[in-house]
Amino acid sequence: MRATYMYSAGDVRVIDVPDPVIQQRTDAVVRVTGSCICGSDLHPFHNLPALPGGKSMGHEFVGVVEDIGADVATVRKGDFVIAPFAWSDGTCDFCQEDLQTSCRHGGFWNANGVYGGQAEAVRVPLADGTLVRVPVGEDSELLPSLLTLSDVYGTGYHAALKGGVDERTSVTVIGDGAVGLLAVLSARQLGAQRIILMGRHKKRTDLGVEFGATDVVAERGEEGIAKVRELTGGDGTHVVLEAVGHMPAYEQAIGVVRPGGVISRVGVPQYLDAPVGFSSLFGPNITLTGGPAPARAYIERLLPGVLSGKVNPGKVFDQTVTLDQVPDGYRAMDNRDALKVLIR
Amino acid sequence: MRATYMYSAGDVRVIDVPDPVIQQRTDAVVRVTGSCICGSDLHPFHNLPALPGGKSMGHEFVGVVEDIGADVATVRKGDFVIAPFAWSDGTCDFCQEDLQTSCRHGGFWNANGVYGGQAEAVRVPLADGTLVRVPVGEDSELLPSLLTLSDVYGTGYHAALKGGVDERTSVTVIGDGAVGLLAVLSARQLGAQRIILMGRHKKRTDLGVEFGATDVVAERGEEGIAKVRELTGGDGTHVVLEAVGHMPAYEQAIGVVRPGGVISRVGVPQYLDAPVGFSSLFGPNITLTGGPAPARAYIERLLPGVLSGKVNPGKVFDQTVTLDQVPDGYRAMDNRDALKVLIR
Repeated sequence: MRATYMYSAGDVRVIDVPDPVIQQRTDAVVRVTGSCICGSDLHPFHNLPALPGGKSMGHEFVGVVEDIGADVATVRKGDFVIAPFAWSDGTCDFCQEDLQTSCRHGGFWNANGVYGGQAEAVRVPLADGTLVRVPVGEDSELLPSLLTLSDVYGTGYHAALKGGVDERTSVTVIGDGAVGLLAVLSARQLGAQRIILMGRHKKRTDLGVEFGATDVVAERGEEGIAKVRELTGGDGTHVVLEAVGHMPAYEQAIGVVRPGGVISRVGVPQYLDAPVGFSSLFGPNITLTGGPAPARAYIERLLPGVLSGKVNPGKVFDQTVTLDQVPDGYRAMDNRDALKVLIR
Repeated sequence: MRATYMYSAGDVRVIDVPDPVIQQRTDAVVRVTGSCICGSDLHPFHNLPALPGGKSMGHEFVGVVEDIGADVATVRKGDFVIAPFAWSDGTCDFCQEDLQTSCRHGGFWNANGVYGGQAEAVRVPLADGTLVRVPVGEDSELLPSLLTLSDVYGTGYHAALKGGVDERTSVTVIGDGAVGLLAVLSARQLGAQRIILMGRHKKRTDLGVEFGATDVVAERGEEGIAKVRELTGGDGTHVVLEAVGHMPAYEQAIGVVRPGGVISRVGVPQYLDAPVGFSSLFGPNITLTGGPAPARAYIERLLPGVLSGKVNPGKVFDQTVTLDQVPDGYRAMDNRDALKVLIR
């Protein structure tokens, strides 16, 4: 089959690899009908050191079950399924606590003999815990929205949930990528009445407004902070959802959070240390939370809205490529020509 | 009157200063019957640069109202009162949200013309918002426990409350100072069944056991982390209450917190930046919270337990000095001869 590998920063290729097969009694093999390129895939696209053997790519996919191991009970051949960006057993204490990203027997795609979703097919370990069957055909027009449940929608929702967003909290969202926009959508779903979106790409922030943002601040840094404070009577917002991962976004979050408030991070931090002392977090009693979303935990919760058409998170996809065009898709996202690229 | 001033690291003097008088219609003057030296007073005792005019000291006191301004309505001359370590109006939105440390019109002792509690008397601004009247005489044997409501008990309670401690959470407390020990007491009050106290002063950790600690770990650093993990099946505890404020305590907190858990800091951080990246906080979805306790918010809540004798937080005082002996008290706390020094 064909699969996407990255060999060094900027060097993405679609190559021939052996078809995946069942290895464990708990495995399934899924034929991928939709996958995508993630903002977080751009980090190795910028930084990956040369790897002669390459590294398989992709951690978001939906598809049809092609084969199952002897112990798989919850999905069957022919089922349409969503795979979250971490695989997990669904039975350990962390999974039971809805922290599947810390599953005792789980892991992430593209590591330890498990390969990625930017491919024709994937071997899925612990299929019963990992996959969620959805009662739609593989040609469903809902595919883009269903695919967002694999990562970006669940990640935006995780940000809002961990941030404690409700009808009484004002919210700032930092970042107008797919996760930031779906953090806006999620904050709205959780009841927020005031949602300030910080982003400077009008096409994207327009979608943010459609998703529920009440204000857009295009300025960054000190100027952006001043603008948000001006919009909030000088105080900043109760909650800040940080969907970028770079230090300036962290600093911006500290600048716009209200005393006693919460900064919820879902952008993968591209730094090790950051300000947490008296003048940043401690003095004003700011809480810092977030992390990789247990997307698996949110699929059932968010699915009804998607199936009913009440929400349409799939609007974050603004470009579609075939598998062989994936390298072009990376470039389009890197150039910001595309917000998020769907692979069909 | 006599009052305590610090002139540089290690140089504490009790000097003569003018008696405090009412300056604003919302002021009260309180004759101090009990005050104390705080672990946080040791930071300037170690680091204060030379100040020719000195700096008044003390932010924890109880006493008797001597005089009130024309607008003061909730306390009268002769009332016994507790003063929390921040003064506040009690009416602004932050006060209403129980974040009196961020009061829009409040402040801290020993700043901006407001002086400290290690003195014979104190001018208390915004007396209606700040002071809590307690129906006891000034010779009450409960004075030490009532005095802890000024700071250390409320601070320990804040740690536990912000950490989300309840009957389902396991807890590690880092630090066997007065705040750490009262964090143990508070965690027990909030229902925690498993409380591991990290501290190496047996006399103090013995009091921690009396307050509710189920395990004591005397080891520090990697060894201490390994010990806590061994006690918790390898995982660490759901909540870590950090009552020290130095970087090794922060690192220890990261080492002993369970994935998905909470680090709640009340030790005033003596650092600006700290690890918050993928391998420390983000990857395992750790929440970092805490800050200066809104002690004012907790006085009414914690008072019944103190008045009934059900809890005895005043046991953290193991040495008593007169006001003129305060410099000796600083030295005793600095040498760790005293856990906490009461001034009568």
